[in-house]
Amino acid sequence: MARQRTLWHHVRLATMDPSRPEPYGRLDGHALIVEDDRVVSIAPLSSLSPASFDGHVVDGGGRWVTPGLIDCHTHLVYGGSRAEEWEKRLTGVPYETIAREGGGILSTVRATRALDEEGLFQASLPRLKALMNEGVTCIEIKSGYGLDLDNELKQLRVARRLGREFAVEIAPTLLAAHAVPPEFVGDADGWIERIADTLIPAAASAGLAEAVDVFCEGVGFSVAQCRRVFDAARAHSLAVKAHAEQLSHRGGAQLVADCGGLSADHLEHLDAAGVHRMAQAGTVAVLLPGAFYFLRETSRPPVEALRRAGVPMAVSSDLNPGTSPFASLRLAMNQACVLFGLTPEEALAGATRHAARALGRGTRMGVLAEGRLADFLVWSVDHPSEIVYSLGTPLLHQRVFRGVARHIALESDS
Amino acid sequence: MARQRTLWHHVRLATMDPSRPEPYGRLDGHALIVEDDRVVSIAPLSSLSPASFDGHVVDGGGRWVTPGLIDCHTHLVYGGSRAEEWEKRLTGVPYETIAREGGGILSTVRATRALDEEGLFQASLPRLKALMNEGVTCIEIKSGYGLDLDNELKQLRVARRLGREFAVEIAPTLLAAHAVPPEFVGDADGWIERIADTLIPAAASAGLAEAVDVFCEGVGFSVAQCRRVFDAARAHSLAVKAHAEQLSHRGGAQLVADCGGLSADHLEHLDAAGVHRMAQAGTVAVLLPGAFYFLRETSRPPVEALRRAGVPMAVSSDLNPGTSPFASLRLAMNQACVLFGLTPEEALAGATRHAARALGRGTRMGVLAEGRLADFLVWSVDHPSEIVYSLGTPLLHQRVFRGVARHIALESDS
Ligand SMILES: [Zn+2]
Ligand SMILES: [Zn+2]
Repeated sequence: MARQRTLWHHVRLATMDPSRPEPYGRLDGHALIVEDDRVVSIAPLSSLSPASFDGHVVDGGGRWVTPGLIDCHTHLVYGGSRAEEWEKRLTGVPYETIAREGGGILSTVRATRALDEEGLFQASLPRLKALMNEGVTCIEIKSGYGLDLDNELKQLRVARRLGREFAVEIAPTLLAAHAVPPEFVGDADGWIERIADTLIPAAASAGLAEAVDVFCEGVGFSVAQCRRVFDAARAHSLAVKAHAEQLSHRGGAQLVADCGGLSADHLEHLDAAGVHRMAQAGTVAVLLPGAFYFLRETSRPPVEALRRAGVPMAVSSDLNPGTSPFASLRLAMNQACVLFGLTPEEALAGATRHAARALGRGTRMGVLAEGRLADFLVWSVDHPSEIVYSLGTPLLHQRVFRGVARHIALESDS
Repeated sequence: MARQRTLWHHVRLATMDPSRPEPYGRLDGHALIVEDDRVVSIAPLSSLSPASFDGHVVDGGGRWVTPGLIDCHTHLVYGGSRAEEWEKRLTGVPYETIAREGGGILSTVRATRALDEEGLFQASLPRLKALMNEGVTCIEIKSGYGLDLDNELKQLRVARRLGREFAVEIAPTLLAAHAVPPEFVGDADGWIERIADTLIPAAASAGLAEAVDVFCEGVGFSVAQCRRVFDAARAHSLAVKAHAEQLSHRGGAQLVADCGGLSADHLEHLDAAGVHRMAQAGTVAVLLPGAFYFLRETSRPPVEALRRAGVPMAVSSDLNPGTSPFASLRLAMNQACVLFGLTPEEALAGATRHAARALGRGTRMGVLAEGRLADFLVWSVDHPSEIVYSLGTPLLHQRVFRGVARHIALESDS
C-alpha cells in the first residue's frame, strides 16, 4: 500500500524536545513531515518546497503544535459515582460513618462489579471522550475496583476495548493491590498472595496489563507487601510503579526506585533520601494535584528538590471517583502550577515528555521529533502557556493521532 | 400568535425553591409546564394527563432538571491574554518588574482598546460559548478594561451584542472604577470625577449598563471614592455593587450594604460587622473561589458566619484574564465546596437562586417555579451533587432558554 505522506507547515512547533534550546523546544519556520503514523522529518521550510511535496500539504494557519497529551495515571474505568458521599462529607458526616454505611473505595468496587463489560464500557466512555477532546492521545488506565480475578480482568478488558474503538492509545495497569477486598477482610497478606499467585499471572498471560501498581500507604499496603507484588510482576516481565508517600512517608518511592520501576506517584510526603534514590534510578515522579486539591491536603510534593535533583516530573489527572473526579488533564496542569509551583513549561513537559517516560514510552511519544509517533495537537493559542493558564474555553483546533487529523467538532459528534 | 405550550414530564426537579422542604427543592412525579418563555405550572403528574395535553410533550427520561446557571460576576469581554505574564510570575520574575514592563491590568486595557468592536466580540465569543455549553443562561459582564468613555462603552456594546445574538441573557455592569487609566496616573480623584460626571451618565442614557461596580481596595479605590461613584450611579437609577474586602479589609461591603446595593463580591477579609450589615441590608455575598485559587490566597471568606447570619451566598467564575482565567461556573462551584467549605447544594443555590438575586433578577429567574422564566437545564446525572462534584465530563443533556430547548451537541456546532 502506498504510504500516506503529509507536510504540515505554517506552524509554530512546541517540540518539547530537550535537545532544542528554546523554551518549549520551540521551532519556527519548520515543517513537520508525517509518513503513515510517524513523524519522519522536522526540517527548515527554507530547505523544502511545500508546493512540490509529493503528498498532502496542510497549512497550520500559524498555530502552535504540541505533542499529544499523555495522561499517565488514571482510574478511568469504574462504575457509580461518589458525589453523594462527597456531599455527606461536606455536610459534616464523619468519614467513619460514611465507611460504616458502605462508602469509600468499596462502594466503587460494588458499583464496578455490578456492571457487565458493556455497562462498564458505556460508563467509562464520557470520561474517555472528555480527555480525548482536550487533546489526550495516550491514557494509562488502572484496574483496582474489581478486587477479584474476574472483575479485575473485566476492568482491563474494558480498558483494552476503549483503545481499540477510539483514536487513543491505552496503557493498562493491574492495580489489584488497591484495597483489601471484602472477601479478604483481616487477611491483607492473603490478598497479596492471591495477587501474586493468580491475578498477576492471569493478567500477564492474557496480555491485559503491561504494568502493576500498588497503593503503598498506611491505609493501603506495607512496603513488604508491595515488594511481594513487585517480585511477582517482574517474574512475569511486567513493569512496576506505586502510589507512594501520599498521606504519609512509607518508603514506597524508594521501593519503586530499588526495583527499577517506572514511576512513584503522588509523593506529597517524599523525603530527601527518596528524591535522591529516584534521581539515581531514573524513576519518574508523577504529580497528582487533583487529589491534593480535592482532599484539601497541605503538604506539597518536594518540587524544588525534585527539580534540583533532575527527577523528571510528570503531571496527571488521577481521574477517579473518590479523590480526583476530574476528567481534565488541562486542569491538572493548571493545578500543578498554581498549587505546586511548576512553571507552565514544566507542566506541559509533565503531560507529554515525562508522562511518556512514566509509561515506558519515552522513545515512542511525548516529543515532536523524527521517528516518534505522529500524535500531536494543533492549538488556537498565541503561546503554549495559554494551554496551561486558562480553563473552560476549548483551545484545541485539531487532534492528530497516528498521523490522522480530526477536527475536534467532528470528534465530539462521534 | 398561538402560544407555545410544552409539558416536561418523567423528570426529577431540583427546583432550588426554598419553599420546598426537600434538599435542592426536589420534586418527583411532577410535570413542568412551559408557555412561551415562562414556567406556568409545576403540577403533580397524578393531576395531569400528558397524553391529552394540548401542546408539545417532552419525556425527560428520568433526568434531573435544574434552573439555568447564572454567572453573576464576570469580566468576559476583553482583549489579549495574560498567560505569558503568569508564566513570568511562576518563573520568579517579581511583580514590580512585570508591572514596569507594562504587565498587569493595564496590559489588558491596552489589548482591549486596540480591538475594534467586532474584534472584541470575536475575542469574547469562545468564553461565552464555553459558559453557555456548561449550562449558563444568564451572565453578568463588566466593563473595566476600556477606562475611557469610548472604550468602556465599546465593551458594554459588545456585551449587549452577545446577548442579542445568542440564547443567553446578559446583565451589563459599568466598572470604570476598576483601575486608574494611564491618562489619569496620579489623579485617581480626577478619574472618579470623570466617571461620575461623564461615564455613568453616558452609560445610563445609552441603556448600556444596569449597574455600577467599583474595585474597593488598597490597590484600587478608597471607600470615599467608591461612595462618590455610587452616589452618581444612584442618581441615574443604576444599581451598585463592589469588589470588596478581597486583599484587605476596607469597608467596601459595609458601603454596599449602606447604599442598598446588590452584592459585595470576594469578601476574603470581611469582618463580623460587615457580615452583620450585609445580613441587615439583604446584600448578596458573591464568592469568587477562582481568584482565591489562582492567587494562592490563604484567608477564606467567613462562610460559616455568612451562613449563620443568613446572608445569601452566590458563587461566580469571576472570569478575567488576570486573576481567574476560567470560563467555567462548574469549576467555581467545585472550588467553592473544596476551598471554601460550601455544600454542593449551597454551591448550586449560589449559581442559581442567589446569583439571580445578586443581579436584581430574583423574581424572574434562579428557581424552577410558576411565573419564572423558562430557563432550565436537563442533566445526565443521578443526583444534582454530581454537577458540582465532577469536572471535565460534560453532563448537560439539554439547555432550555426562554422555553426553547437545544441539545448541547447542536449548540457547540453553532
Ligand atoms: Zn491513583
Ligand atoms: Zn471581578
